[in-house]
Parts: sequence; C-alpha cells; structure tokens
Amino acid sequence: MSIDKLSINLATVREQWDLREAAEACARHGITAIDPWRDQVAKLGLSAAVRVIRDNGLRVSGYCRGGMFTSPDAIDDNRRAIDEAAALGAECLVLVCGGLPAGSRDLVEARKRIADGLGTILPHARACKMPLAIEPLHPMYAADRACVNTLAQAIDLAQALGDGVGVAVDTYHVWWDPDLEAQIARAGRMRKILAYHISDWLVPTRDILLDRGMMGDGVIDFARIGRWIEQAGYRGYTEVEIFSKRDWWTRPGDEVLRTCIERYRSTLM
Amino acid sequence: MSIDKLSINLATVREQWDLREAAEACARHGITAIDPWRDQVAKLGLSAAVRVIRDNGLRVSGYCRGGMFTSPDAIDDNRRAIDEAAALGAECLVLVCGGLPAGSRDLVEARKRIADGLGTILPHARACKMPLAIEPLHPMYAADRACVNTLAQAIDLAQALGDGVGVAVDTYHVWWDPDLEAQIARAGRMRKILAYHISDWLVPTRDILLDRGMMGDGVIDFARIGRWIEQAGYRGYTEVEIFSKRDWWTRPGDEVLRTCIERYRSTLM
Repeated sequence: MSIDKLSINLATVREQWDLREAAEACARHGITAIDPWRDQVAKLGLSAAVRVIRDNGLRVSGYCRGGMFTSPDAIDDNRRAIDEAAALGAECLVLVCGGLPAGSRDLVEARKRIADGLGTILPHARACKMPLAIEPLHPMYAADRACVNTLAQAIDLAQALGDGVGVAVDTYHVWWDPDLEAQIARAGRMRKILAYHISDWLVPTRDILLDRGMMGDGVIDFARIGRWIEQAGYRGYTEVEIFSKRDWWTRPGDEVLRTCIERYRSTLM
Repeated sequence: MSIDKLSINLATVREQWDLREAAEACARHGITAIDPWRDQVAKLGLSAAVRVIRDNGLRVSGYCRGGMFTSPDAIDDNRRAIDEAAALGAECLVLVCGGLPAGSRDLVEARKRIADGLGTILPHARACKMPLAIEPLHPMYAADRACVNTLAQAIDLAQALGDGVGVAVDTYHVWWDPDLEAQIARAGRMRKILAYHISDWLVPTRDILLDRGMMGDGVIDFARIGRWIEQAGYRGYTEVEIFSKRDWWTRPGDEVLRTCIERYRSTLM
C-alpha cells in the first residue's frame, strides 16, 4: 500500500523534534506531507519554515490551528493564522473552535460566539483562498477546548457559512457517534471534508488529553470509517495525529514514524 | 425549596456507608428517596434491603443497574435485576447498556446486540411492571461501558421497543449535546423520561470515570437543563449521583448529604 496519501501531524513527534528535524525525518522515511503546529512554525520563524518544508519536498495537508473563538483577541489571531497557513501553502487551516469562556456555563452563547467568530474571519480566509476546516472535538472537550462536538454540528456550521468552510474529521473525536456514517456521507455530498485525521481510542484511557493511541492499539475500526470517508469522495491526505505523553512521545522519533507507516498500511484497509 | 423530589443515588456515598447506614442517614437528613446499587443490595440481602428501605420511609427512584448486553450471561442477569427492582419497589431499572465486546471494534454489531438484549428481557420487565430506563452514557464510555451515547439514540431504542422502555437523563453524560433541548422535549412528548440524574462536569477532569463533581463545582447549567426537563413534563425525582474518588468519597457521609441538599437548593433554580 502506497504512502502517497499519508501525512504526519507534527504533534505526533513534538517532544522529539523541532519542525526542521521533523520535516527532514519525514522526507527520509518517504513521507510526503505534514501538518505543522503554529508554535513549531513560530519557533523556527515563518520564512525558514516555508523553506524547510519546500527543501524537503513536503506538502502541507493542514495547519494547526486556528479557532478558540471564545477567547479574547481570537479574531486578530485567526487572521494571522490564515496568513501563516497561506504562506505555508497549507490545504486548510484546522479550527479548534473554543470551549466555554472563563466562568461561563452558557453553551448556547459560546456556540453563538463561535459562529460569529467564524463569520468574522471568513472574508479574510476567502481573500487568501485558505479553506477553514472546523474540527468537531470529542464531547469530553466541550468545556475547555471546543463546544463543537459532533460532525453534524460542524457540518451545520460549515453549511450556514458557505464557501470556504468545511470540516476536519478526526477518528479520535467522532468514532463513537451513532450518526457518523450518515454525517460523513452528508459532508461528502456537500464536498465539505477538508481533512481526515487518525489516532486510536485506548482502553483504558488514562489522560483525557494526552493518551491517544497508535492505530491498531485501541478500538477504532479504521477500515470501516476509512471506507465511509472514501465513499464520500474524499481523496486528500490521511493524517496521523497522536498526543501520547506516556508512550509515543517517549520513543525515538524514527521509531514513531516507522510505526505510523506500518500501522497506516496494516489497519486502514 | 422543598427537597421532596430529591433522591440520592447511593453510589454517591458508597465508600462511606453500606445500604443500611446510607438509608438511615438519608432519613435523618429528610431525604425521601434513594437509588441503591445491586452490590449494595446483595451485601445486605434482598429482603433485609427491602425492610431497611421501608423502615426508613424511603422511596426507590431507580435501581442501578441492569444492561451490559454485550457481556456473556447478560440476559439471565438482567432478569434477576428486574426481579430485585420489583421487590424493592423501584420506579425503574436503570440500564447501562454495555460497550464493545472483548476484542471487538464493531460498534454497529455491539449496538445491535444491545437492541436484541433489550427486546429479550422486555417481556419479563413488562410482566413485573418494571420500566426499563436506557441511560445514554457520555461518548468517552463508548468502548468499555455503553455504546448508547446520545439521548437521541436512547430515545430511538426506547421508541422501537415500545411500552415499558424509556430513558434516564443524566446531566454528566448529556450536558454537552447540541441537540439536548430538542431531545429532552421529544422524550417528554413520548412520556419516556423515567429518571433524571445530576452531577457536574469538572474542569479539569482528572479521571475518566471517578471524577464527577458536586453541582455548582463544574460547568453544567443545571437551572437551564432542569427547566427543559420540567417543560418536558417530567415530575419525578432529581437524583444526585456522584462518583468522586478524590473528593466526595473521602468526606464524611453526613457532609456529603448536607452538601447535596444545599446545592440542590442553590443550583437547580
């Protein structure tokens, strides 16, 4: 199985390497695309990051991340993220939309602020031809990271906003959803799937944020969900994104990349 | 505010008291209803449990729990749970439906087994006049506890099964759901709300199972969800159910009950 459509989200090796080292390692392993994070780009500097990515022949399957619309200064920060994503030639800017504002219990209002924030940054994103990918996050992050928590909800938002807005489907966040097949098909019909991320759900899960699994080590059926994604017409990258404090972040980066490639081949079909 | 409709799920004080002690303590605090767990009843013996509950003038707002339809021997075990619930005079048997079978990644099949299991035990439940309350669990429990994960999904199941099956709405499991208001209203129209449980979502959540919060200590808007429940026509008990290894399970039981009463009065309106 070819790895032409495999991308590595650089959070997966963030404890081992900086952006330059990670880009070089990906190229060395025959990986053709990455998704860098803003702090990784900032550390190297934007123009150096652009050069490193180009020199290693890499595509940028997405840029992580904008969003956080329920925090102060979100609009200016998102405009900067859009500019960076455009400079990097990213296929989309991934948006983690933000949780409840500090001290608030009002999910309805937080969700309205997210929709408003998206509407405010959209003209700039369109002007930069940078697609915005709303990523629904697992409901366990509704309080502190994103109160967009189902694919249906993300598609509704993307649909209301129109051109230039789609969704990022991440197996870790959506695998449990009884409505997943139908919603993936719906997003496909609307041509709204902008990114597909994979990592596994471990049993037990020991940390609510940093205990994601390598594909095959948990309970997610990647072959089935991958078929739904393909049947929905998505032909973009499959991006491995693993936050793993106790396991993968402690191993040598080359071992992590080798394992990503191996599991991509063995679990996705 | 009267506490006539307050019930204490005895998991809340399980580390402090056995069923007899907990029942006596509830009566002492003016609490009129409880929801005992099967292991608590088994420890005392069923007929002694019936006597203790009667002698303390308590109602049984629910019995925890049946379900686990994806495990072996689930059917016989559920029939016994129904018999016990009937002996205790419980208003419903709460069902945690079961996660993926060991070694399986097939959510579709697991969900089918749950529907089949419910259908199999339903005649016995009806014969015993014991309503079955399907409790949707938070999606973070989809793998290992219940792959019924949204209120919509639980209502769909209850609707397909017909008379004698409803849902248990637990704020901890459903608070994040963008569809919650609509689904509570739908369950109300169908007269399917059999139980209403409350506990709070803490930020941060340090343990995926045993770190639930006392109402007011987290981010859930109990006044708003409570209004939806009331507008849906539910007039039953509001049951406090808190699994809290690091906090409430370590405090004196009387302090826990006093706090439950106080927070019931201060956060629900």
